[in-house]
Amino acid sequence: MHRYRSHTCGALSTAEVGQIVRLSGWCHRIRDHGGVLFIDLRDHYGLTQVVVDPDSPAFKGAEKARSEWVIRIDGKVRPRPEGTENPDLTTGAVEVYALELEVLGPAAELPLPVFGDVEYPEETRLKYRFLDLRREKLHRNIMTRGAIIDAMRRRMKDQGFFEFQTPILTASSPEGARDFLVPSRLHPGKFYALPQAPQQYKQLIMMSGFDRYFQIAPCFRDEDPRADRLPGEFYQLDLEMSFVEQEDVFAAMEPVITGVFEEFAGGKPVTKNWPRIPYAEALRKYGTDKPDLRNPLVMQNVSDHFRGSGFKVFARMLEVEKNEVWAIPGPGGGSRAFCDRMNSWAQGEGQPGLGYIMWREGGEGAGPLANNIGPERTEAIREQLGLKAGDAAFFVAGDPDKFVKFAGLARTKVGEELNLVDKDRFELAWIVDFPFYEYSEEEKKVDFSHNPFSMPQGGLEALNTQDPLTIKAFQYDIACNGYEIASGGIRNHRPEAMVKAFELAGYDEATVVERFGGMYRAFQYGAPPHGGMAAGVDRIVMLLCGTTNLREISIFPMNQQALDLLMGAPNEASPKQLRELHIRPAPQAKG
Amino acid sequence: MHRYRSHTCGALSTAEVGQIVRLSGWCHRIRDHGGVLFIDLRDHYGLTQVVVDPDSPAFKGAEKARSEWVIRIDGKVRPRPEGTENPDLTTGAVEVYALELEVLGPAAELPLPVFGDVEYPEETRLKYRFLDLRREKLHRNIMTRGAIIDAMRRRMKDQGFFEFQTPILTASSPEGARDFLVPSRLHPGKFYALPQAPQQYKQLIMMSGFDRYFQIAPCFRDEDPRADRLPGEFYQLDLEMSFVEQEDVFAAMEPVITGVFEEFAGGKPVTKNWPRIPYAEALRKYGTDKPDLRNPLVMQNVSDHFRGSGFKVFARMLEVEKNEVWAIPGPGGGSRAFCDRMNSWAQGEGQPGLGYIMWREGGEGAGPLANNIGPERTEAIREQLGLKAGDAAFFVAGDPDKFVKFAGLARTKVGEELNLVDKDRFELAWIVDFPFYEYSEEEKKVDFSHNPFSMPQGGLEALNTQDPLTIKAFQYDIACNGYEIASGGIRNHRPEAMVKAFELAGYDEATVVERFGGMYRAFQYGAPPHGGMAAGVDRIVMLLCGTTNLREISIFPMNQQALDLLMGAPNEASPKQLRELHIRPAPQAKG
Repeated sequence: MHRYRSHTCGALSTAEVGQIVRLSGWCHRIRDHGGVLFIDLRDHYGLTQVVVDPDSPAFKGAEKARSEWVIRIDGKVRPRPEGTENPDLTTGAVEVYALELEVLGPAAELPLPVFGDVEYPEETRLKYRFLDLRREKLHRNIMTRGAIIDAMRRRMKDQGFFEFQTPILTASSPEGARDFLVPSRLHPGKFYALPQAPQQYKQLIMMSGFDRYFQIAPCFRDEDPRADRLPGEFYQLDLEMSFVEQEDVFAAMEPVITGVFEEFAGGKPVTKNWPRIPYAEALRKYGTDKPDLRNPLVMQNVSDHFRGSGFKVFARMLEVEKNEVWAIPGPGGGSRAFCDRMNSWAQGEGQPGLGYIMWREGGEGAGPLANNIGPERTEAIREQLGLKAGDAAFFVAGDPDKFVKFAGLARTKVGEELNLVDKDRFELAWIVDFPFYEYSEEEKKVDFSHNPFSMPQGGLEALNTQDPLTIKAFQYDIACNGYEIASGGIRNHRPEAMVKAFELAGYDEATVVERFGGMYRAFQYGAPPHGGMAAGVDRIVMLLCGTTNLREISIFPMNQQALDLLMGAPNEASPKQLRELHIRPAPQAKG
Repeated sequence: MHRYRSHTCGALSTAEVGQIVRLSGWCHRIRDHGGVLFIDLRDHYGLTQVVVDPDSPAFKGAEKARSEWVIRIDGKVRPRPEGTENPDLTTGAVEVYALELEVLGPAAELPLPVFGDVEYPEETRLKYRFLDLRREKLHRNIMTRGAIIDAMRRRMKDQGFFEFQTPILTASSPEGARDFLVPSRLHPGKFYALPQAPQQYKQLIMMSGFDRYFQIAPCFRDEDPRADRLPGEFYQLDLEMSFVEQEDVFAAMEPVITGVFEEFAGGKPVTKNWPRIPYAEALRKYGTDKPDLRNPLVMQNVSDHFRGSGFKVFARMLEVEKNEVWAIPGPGGGSRAFCDRMNSWAQGEGQPGLGYIMWREGGEGAGPLANNIGPERTEAIREQLGLKAGDAAFFVAGDPDKFVKFAGLARTKVGEELNLVDKDRFELAWIVDFPFYEYSEEEKKVDFSHNPFSMPQGGLEALNTQDPLTIKAFQYDIACNGYEIASGGIRNHRPEAMVKAFELAGYDEATVVERFGGMYRAFQYGAPPHGGMAAGVDRIVMLLCGTTNLREISIFPMNQQALDLLMGAPNEASPKQLRELHIRPAPQAKG
């Protein structure tokens, strides 16, 4: 017989009744029923009930065993007594009467129980991650994560993509976040950088004549702690294709992402034939470029109804050309209590308040705004928004660039408060036509709004003739349930257009050559049209596991202070190490 | 029609004759045959012959095109004129008569030709890697690399392994090579380390109750340039299993590796039922723990024949107990010319020479050694080695620990010079029973010879009772054609044995806790017996691609000075970056 097991703890059924078997695993739960011990023995594959009574030679050992001890038992499979079967377990029809027991790995008193679902402080969970990972939910999440990555890989290959590994010790990449640096020992004073994304490499792969690249790629950004991103490193499903336009990328990726979602959605509906929403429209309708389309509310511009109206605050605002008034419909929200609650919420968000109209049972609009603009305008608003008695509308006014973010929050809040959001579905959409440039208030100049390597719509001609701030890029996102889960673009493969694009953002050719020398060089020697995207693996897994905490789907995450509590990283370096790397700590830089 | 192509350059056959098609690709080769231009248009999928004559509207564009320009052509498929078909090309029966041509990406004059197989300096190849990668051989190697990794992954899953991603920003690992460090911005004066291997994490995954882990894992070692290792980063097929003994790891891995080799060996024979060679035996027979078993030569201890003999140099040496004389048989090497050549080679290797006996046609041994020891001993040596007339034997003598490496080289040299090595096969073997400890001359103490986390054979009892230098470990390698391609062990999962093992190597418990805190902690809370191994992906790909240069199978490698000539890494950091990372360059440390 095998030294440790003849079966896993998830294998036995009535087919094995009467057999002598050997199992190894963790003591998940130990119960004493009148002197008879019941041990739920657990391994990765399942649970098996082991019974030890005082007549068994295993009894003495079993009496000593405690939770999470690793033991081996030899025993005889027998049916569970009638009425004690557990249909929730694959092994629930049988139990094993233990004849012999060996302790393989004892356990000290546990800082964190494995059995049960009690919440524990994150610090304990991360420090004892090996215990936390034995717990059912986290264990399952990690397995689901792996299965999702397998599915992504399989589906990418089915689409003709081929996997490559790009370097991890490299030079700065242009994503614009902060790089992690690695001091070079052999080249004093110089540093490698960990890639923020394999952006340049994947484009170079296309210029190297490979056709369809993908990678489950580790990416590194030294950012300040953010709830929606793992500190330090994260994974993306990275891809690039040659000889394509935007439609080709969509056609390749939509089935991959839809397929992965359907496979792991547990029966929840997943969007087919994703809508394509231009960036500007997304802002107008949802107040964000990553709308949660499970929320049916669509904002509308209702400026005309307030222009010159008796509601002087809005009327006066609208005298400034760029200002607008947007309405957030609130179907079913037509009560003073609800409207007041929304108003208070807005004040809590730092706003002066949230104007509203409610349509009471009679059908007439009510509230201060309705009183000020009169019944005709109130009715016209109701009609435009398609509302009825019992509904409300909320209003934000001013410069859309400034209020749009709050308007988006208000739309989310109204939708959630009115229970309009169907949580049990995945709503996917392409967000398209991102602006190529934006005006940086900080630097008082035009700068790239996203990826400088994207192809501007209209190409070199647009760069030469249009107001930069009106140029759109062949650049797109995938939004799902309020998250951006992917982002990409068709690349600018013409060196003269690349130089011009950078020039408009204030970088001369010498700077481009210096910062992106490899890419710049490659563009000179036969660059194919190409494009691609990158999907956030961690975020997709998080959505599909039904959690909002990325540390619940990552096996050994750092905490929010970028500390690895399990391994004790980061840590001091020895003077010898620092000497070899030609660096010195500079603690004065702290202040 | 699609903007860039209706077909790839590898797709057309006589089935498409008469169709108007669109192709995009690189101008691989342009020939002018009496005013008619023949363009071999290349993409990732193949080559298609495009014909343009002066009557075609595409002619003007085609005249301008040069090597490696990216063009799109529309044209009509027609059969090649009889006798001009090219059976080596999938598209070799047809050509496309071009009707329209668009330049998608022009190319400057090439620093490195893509067409043809001319050798180029490595510096040029790495700086223009995107051109180098378009060349047939390297392009194919990179695709083979990916296919091998896919095959590894598929076969691992078939064996019930599951893939995990372990952290890349972590703490020092205990492999003993030099770490790459990453300064922490949030924790001044502290550093992350890039993993030399996921050793600790994979053991922690086992202690977390997962059963069979694998990963195509990036690993990082800051080592001085070595011909047989990529600078900086490399990949290993990393795996670990719970509730296993050495035999289980062998049973899981042998079919995976054999299968991968058979799949990519191109028909070359691959060992089935690998021999298992104890470490000590490998040294005795082959002079190395990574023997090339394609070389049939087996060394033997022939000390008895020289003890007390007339060959005083050896006889005197053998008076010291540990000294021995080993023979390398040289079948077919029985000529003065060959033996002298081997002797000169040995002198070139810094040896005083290489003693030999040759058996001439008559059958009698000849040469100085034979003359000194006399015919009886000479004949006894011939008999022991199973040699015959026309053969030779070579001898190394002294302390085996000191001469073993040279003996191994001599065995290789003799085998190669006598053409005994069948290059067209893959000979795989397990090397087992590595010593757990070795005596470190440098530190004048006992130290771990390989992995400190291995289980010593005999367990805690052996540690308590045996001379440490006689303890073997459950530790094993895979050798293939003279390379170590994998290494592993059964781990020590008992904390008390771990503490004792470290104690014998001079590390007290506090040091263990400090250096391997996470592991030490995990051992306290129910650790299962476990073991695993790691195979060198790059080295396996190198063997299967039939090259001896790792840069031929890595897509964007650094050069031997750890410089990335394509991206320009490493590079200077800005003063702002250094300030944020709380470090200063310390150039004085250079000297």
